[in-house]
Amino acid sequence: MLEDLKKKVLEANLELVEKDLVIYTWGNVSAIDKETGFVVIKPSGVDYDKLKAEDMVVVDLEGNIVEGNLKPSSDTPTHLVIYKAFKEVGGVVHTHSEWATSFAQAGLSIPAFGTTHADYFYGDIPCTRPMTEAEIKGEYEKETGNVIIETFKDIDPLFVSGVLVNEHGPFSWGKDAADAVYHAVVMEQVAKMAFNTINLKGSMESMNKILLDKHFLRKHGKNAYYGQ
Amino acid sequence: MLEDLKKKVLEANLELVEKDLVIYTWGNVSAIDKETGFVVIKPSGVDYDKLKAEDMVVVDLEGNIVEGNLKPSSDTPTHLVIYKAFKEVGGVVHTHSEWATSFAQAGLSIPAFGTTHADYFYGDIPCTRPMTEAEIKGEYEKETGNVIIETFKDIDPLFVSGVLVNEHGPFSWGKDAADAVYHAVVMEQVAKMAFNTINLKGSMESMNKILLDKHFLRKHGKNAYYGQ
Amino acid sequence: MLEDLKKKVLEANLELVEKDLVIYTWGNVSAIDKETGFVVIKPSGVDYDKLKAEDMVVVDLEGNIVEGNLKPSSDTPTHLVIYKAFKEVGGVVHTHSEWATSFAQAGLSIPAFGTTHADYFYGDIPCTRPMTEAEIKGEYEKETGNVIIETFKDIDPLFVSGVLVNEHGPFSWGKDAADAVYHAVVMEQVAKMAFNTINLKGSMESMNKILLDKHFLRKHGKNAYYGQ
Amino acid sequence: MLEDLKKKVLEANLELVEKDLVIYTWGNVSAIDKETGFVVIKPSGVDYDKLKAEDMVVVDLEGNIVEGNLKPSSDTPTHLVIYKAFKEVGGVVHTHSEWATSFAQAGLSIPAFGTTHADYFYGDIPCTRPMTEAEIKGEYEKETGNVIIETFKDIDPLFVSGVLVNEHGPFSWGKDAADAVYHAVVMEQVAKMAFNTINLKGSMESMNKILLDKHFLRKHGKNAYYGQ
Repeated sequence: MLEDLKKKVLEANLELVEKDLVIYTWGNVSAIDKETGFVVIKPSGVDYDKLKAEDMVVVDLEGNIVEGNLKPSSDTPTHLVIYKAFKEVGGVVHTHSEWATSFAQAGLSIPAFGTTHADYFYGDIPCTRPMTEAEIKGEYEKETGNVIIETFKDIDPLFVSGVLVNEHGPFSWGKDAADAVYHAVVMEQVAKMAFNTINLKGSMESMNKILLDKHFLRKHGKNAYYGQ
Repeated sequence: MLEDLKKKVLEANLELVEKDLVIYTWGNVSAIDKETGFVVIKPSGVDYDKLKAEDMVVVDLEGNIVEGNLKPSSDTPTHLVIYKAFKEVGGVVHTHSEWATSFAQAGLSIPAFGTTHADYFYGDIPCTRPMTEAEIKGEYEKETGNVIIETFKDIDPLFVSGVLVNEHGPFSWGKDAADAVYHAVVMEQVAKMAFNTINLKGSMESMNKILLDKHFLRKHGKNAYYGQ
Repeated sequence: MLEDLKKKVLEANLELVEKDLVIYTWGNVSAIDKETGFVVIKPSGVDYDKLKAEDMVVVDLEGNIVEGNLKPSSDTPTHLVIYKAFKEVGGVVHTHSEWATSFAQAGLSIPAFGTTHADYFYGDIPCTRPMTEAEIKGEYEKETGNVIIETFKDIDPLFVSGVLVNEHGPFSWGKDAADAVYHAVVMEQVAKMAFNTINLKGSMESMNKILLDKHFLRKHGKNAYYGQ
Repeated sequence: MLEDLKKKVLEANLELVEKDLVIYTWGNVSAIDKETGFVVIKPSGVDYDKLKAEDMVVVDLEGNIVEGNLKPSSDTPTHLVIYKAFKEVGGVVHTHSEWATSFAQAGLSIPAFGTTHADYFYGDIPCTRPMTEAEIKGEYEKETGNVIIETFKDIDPLFVSGVLVNEHGPFSWGKDAADAVYHAVVMEQVAKMAFNTINLKGSMESMNKILLDKHFLRKHGKNAYYGQ
């Protein structure tokens, strides 16, 4: 079932390697089939160069395996919480990419410092609060999703398509798996430049709000005029 | 029309990818045909690996499309302002390359710290002032060009062939498209070394002016003796 | 003798090049054959692109050459001390990889800053004390091993599979040669992110201990549930 | 004439590209033929991918062209001063490699911070004093050589095979062209790690002198025992 979606999820996972966001078996991408509500996700612990489309695991939104011989990614419960809360999201990505993870480890949001950031993210990319002892010792992967949702209580997830989990690393999402990977790549790029900018500027103060509006809104929303 | 120039502009755009200055569809290169006054520029939002010479768009200096089925780069009005103000310039480049953009995001010029810089740029590579609300909300891309020109009111654009737009990123130029890309690559290289130098030196103070003169003027101007 | 192990040790050495942990003839990997107690190690000073399985040197735990026409790595006595003290270890790696070596040169442990670290190392990766004049002027390479063992007097080497030798560089180990290289790669990755984190966070304080426990113990030990 | 040496000098120049020490036409390598006292050097301003052995220029120690149709590198007078002063040197390299140049731009020596450095350089890699106005406006490239020699008045150039020219970049040397390039690569590597170490350590203080002695002298001089 969902053979087309499995191919797309496979390709999106391989793109993480291609873009240098992951090493070894790290990272995972999933996508949701809107019709059935089933989620297709990378299996846990399989080398990228051996991954095949048929290895992708199909789960329902409660995490039950619908199809697949392998164990789904251990981060599956986090993906599912995101799909349940952010209805328009079609794909989710998790990596430990170097620069975004460095901000997560410092417990800092990635400030919107310039138009590269503003072209894709409408404001700072937030870092979650630290998880509590109860959350970590409880249903940890699910609670990781919950703390992400909590972080977005006043943020539109379609306007800021990524987050840093405190002392952990980035999650991102998009309209489909490829789009979620695209946001993971751009987040890494802006994180790297934000690191440099903080060093040069000596401050975490975000960019001019008017310029942020201009760049984000010329590419996104109903008045967009950028691109073909 | 201008088929030769289209090929050169295509090659210059692909060189941005080759030199790691851009990812995805980011960045754009244009060139001007001195005879007709027409500008050939990369179309907006097309993947580099699908770009063909015939995709290049021909516009006049007022931005009217003279030839081409695709939309010209959204930054076209900025390029046009540069061509109109800097008469000797034959090619213009815009990227969000990591190191130059980091300086732009910090609102800092790239100080001339050593002979690598002095071999190509006769002094600091300036950062524009922040754009005003009226400029951003008005003809934004054109005003971006205007603030660049304003920055060069006391600088010879042939002696400093690049600029940083505040909270945005670098533009560079040259006698043709390839030369403009060359300057973009060198600007990125000197930006990276300037970042390191600031960290080591703990100051933004530029290099010895006599050494700057020596290196720039042995390669440029009427007394040059460097190279074949 | 031990032809299979020689092939594995060769492959593990070549993996150091592949993963950008070494240049020229730098670095070395060894493995122990539990049955005979013999250690197979890279020869000293041979280019990686000329290394063959039959070049690997077989030594006993006292450092006597059992088989091989080449001189074993100069660091062999350090490897042997590790095998003698850490009985479960099957492979040992030494490199001068950039980021781990930078921490070693600063005399600093690599703090456990996030879950990437916690997935593999159960706490900070320690830096040894500086070696004494007597140790350096005595049996230097053997004393290097001794100071590593001393550093682990209260640490389980299976839970922290790597160390930094003060003003020198990293050693790592694992259940076999490939596993030791895996730990060398991950140590370099977490060292790089730790450097960034220190810069952003302005502190060396390690991560939440409960989160460290969660991530390490979901992958290691008797209650592990992560991976296939 | 000197066709073999020309091939070696060509290969050494191409190695600079291979090792990412140069871009475009930057950098140059030369070698001296001890019998004739002639120096073979890269021509000025020729692309590396077009360089041929027969393009190498032969000059005498006074800088007169003995053979060759192209102009020798503009830095030729600096090379010649080094050959005249350091009799055992057989090859000389100049680059603007990123990390070494960053130290040169900051006017700082590269401190000997660890055994990677100590394996090749017996102490800090010195930075020259700033050149005077008279030196810069006079025979600049020759005076660049003179300030290098002055820097080594109390240093053995065979024990420290490289230098940073203030606000300029690194020169290195060795027993032949390949050895000089080897030293350029290692200098870049230790410069990069020194930058990181300074950031982590918060000091420029060099390593333990006894450890420096141990590492340098186990590989160099009459009591060496390292390598095949």
